[in-house]
Amino acid sequence: MTFDVAGLGVSTIDVIFIVDELPGREMVQRAHASTIQGGGPVATAIVAAARLGARTAMLDRIGGDPFGGMILSEFAVERVNTEGIIVAEGRRSSTASILVRREDGARVIAFSPGDCGELEPREVREDVVRAARILHLNGRHWEASLHAAAVARKGGVTVSFDGGAHRFRPEHRELLPRAEVCIVAAEYAAAYTGAADTAAGAEALLAAGPSLVVITEGTAGSRVHARGGESFHQPAFRVKPVIDTTGAGDAYHGAFLFALARGCSLKETARYAAAVGAMNTRALGGRAALPTLSELETFLSGAP
Amino acid sequence: MTFDVAGLGVSTIDVIFIVDELPGREMVQRAHASTIQGGGPVATAIVAAARLGARTAMLDRIGGDPFGGMILSEFAVERVNTEGIIVAEGRRSSTASILVRREDGARVIAFSPGDCGELEPREVREDVVRAARILHLNGRHWEASLHAAAVARKGGVTVSFDGGAHRFRPEHRELLPRAEVCIVAAEYAAAYTGAADTAAGAEALLAAGPSLVVITEGTAGSRVHARGGESFHQPAFRVKPVIDTTGAGDAYHGAFLFALARGCSLKETARYAAAVGAMNTRALGGRAALPTLSELETFLSGAP
Repeated sequence: MTFDVAGLGVSTIDVIFIVDELPGREMVQRAHASTIQGGGPVATAIVAAARLGARTAMLDRIGGDPFGGMILSEFAVERVNTEGIIVAEGRRSSTASILVRREDGARVIAFSPGDCGELEPREVREDVVRAARILHLNGRHWEASLHAAAVARKGGVTVSFDGGAHRFRPEHRELLPRAEVCIVAAEYAAAYTGAADTAAGAEALLAAGPSLVVITEGTAGSRVHARGGESFHQPAFRVKPVIDTTGAGDAYHGAFLFALARGCSLKETARYAAAVGAMNTRALGGRAALPTLSELETFLSGAP
Repeated sequence: MTFDVAGLGVSTIDVIFIVDELPGREMVQRAHASTIQGGGPVATAIVAAARLGARTAMLDRIGGDPFGGMILSEFAVERVNTEGIIVAEGRRSSTASILVRREDGARVIAFSPGDCGELEPREVREDVVRAARILHLNGRHWEASLHAAAVARKGGVTVSFDGGAHRFRPEHRELLPRAEVCIVAAEYAAAYTGAADTAAGAEALLAAGPSLVVITEGTAGSRVHARGGESFHQPAFRVKPVIDTTGAGDAYHGAFLFALARGCSLKETARYAAAVGAMNTRALGGRAALPTLSELETFLSGAP
């Protein structure tokens, strides 16, 4: 058992409806489309890597409800190893209800964290962590994350940290120094470092510990900073039409880690990541349009 | 195989989140609670009757997706016979996304009809219809409804029609005359008959065919009109706190038909129905607080 990437985070089920109106008042409207599918930043990154061909595993604690069943069956379809997922019987999994306005993709999200509790450090399957090249996490299941990161460091497993736009928490200052790879949204970098611009934020994050920092800015692309090495901007790819941006950043993470585990150059890695992030916006839901490696290569061969 | 009530209609899965704000703009909010459960007016009425102890069956066409699986497993738990439900493999079931504002219960609903298609007349399990005392329908699966109503009439099965508040369609003028029991929202009666008040609406509906007409008005109670017989008002029961009014009307229908099939007096029937409608508002979702018969009797023994 070896894995290119193991993820530790919270899997959710997203229920997504495309509508005409974000309803600020009581109303009934017919949706243009709807879908239910797995989500959660780390979980979707893992599925993105798996879709590209990476050997992957997920560590999590989910509920024994129908949503939990869906979470597991989606991972099974994607061949994600789920031995490290604890199912809390009689508990509810994390879910989100998302309305997307068709006109412009603006979203309203209501999330419900469930009551299945946090993964505990003793529940972390250390053998799964040690069997991975990269451990990817975002600070959810906090104590388990600290423990898994320590196990990973000790075992020579690269630790990767995902900092979502509005997900900064002060305690992350304890976790981030244990990560070698740190891919965060520009808003996260600003909240963490207090730096006024992206370059200064990247410097501050590099100083905090990681040797590779990537700062993502949606359609403005991403900036890659390696300690003592190269620094470059990766433009975002344009796709038309953009159906739903849910999971675009998670897809970027997953593709980045896939390419890193494969030994690609940093420039190639960032290009893969940007392409997969863009491709993932072509369909409704955080995972529906994640490409296989051959779909990715076809896309890149036609890209500017 | 005999049934007290068979239903023909569209089963849905409702995803319900209780939130602080009905979001008229892009935002993320944490829900106070969430649930996913079966819905649909006829389907919930059948479950209400089943929970009280009625022998029930459902006729429908659903998708072979995870939602369809949930629809079937909920019916199984409630002991609703599902031999008359066609599963369209590779198709999506009907779903609804519902946000409920905690402060006042105001709701926004986005519904997605799925693509599993209508039940066709040739797909109607006539043996199930004939084995029932009462056939309950609301005009969904239109051609199948007309056919099933004809089969029912010929077999001496009482036909019951549910007219929801905003569900009037001109073609219903063809179906309603085939029903003996007609329980409709006041808005439906007004739309169907053009009558200015409830009494005149009831008279017009009685003249259209049904021998028993009930007009429901939420917390204002319901009015029962039997052709050439009694006419009375049934007050609504008050419960506190009201958590979610989803399915209250459907619960009223199901309890009404349960009591009717049992041979209760009209007054007793209406009292049961009103109590079950009220009791169903005590929990999140259209079905979670549906009572058993003993719970209903306990509630009524303490009611004014």
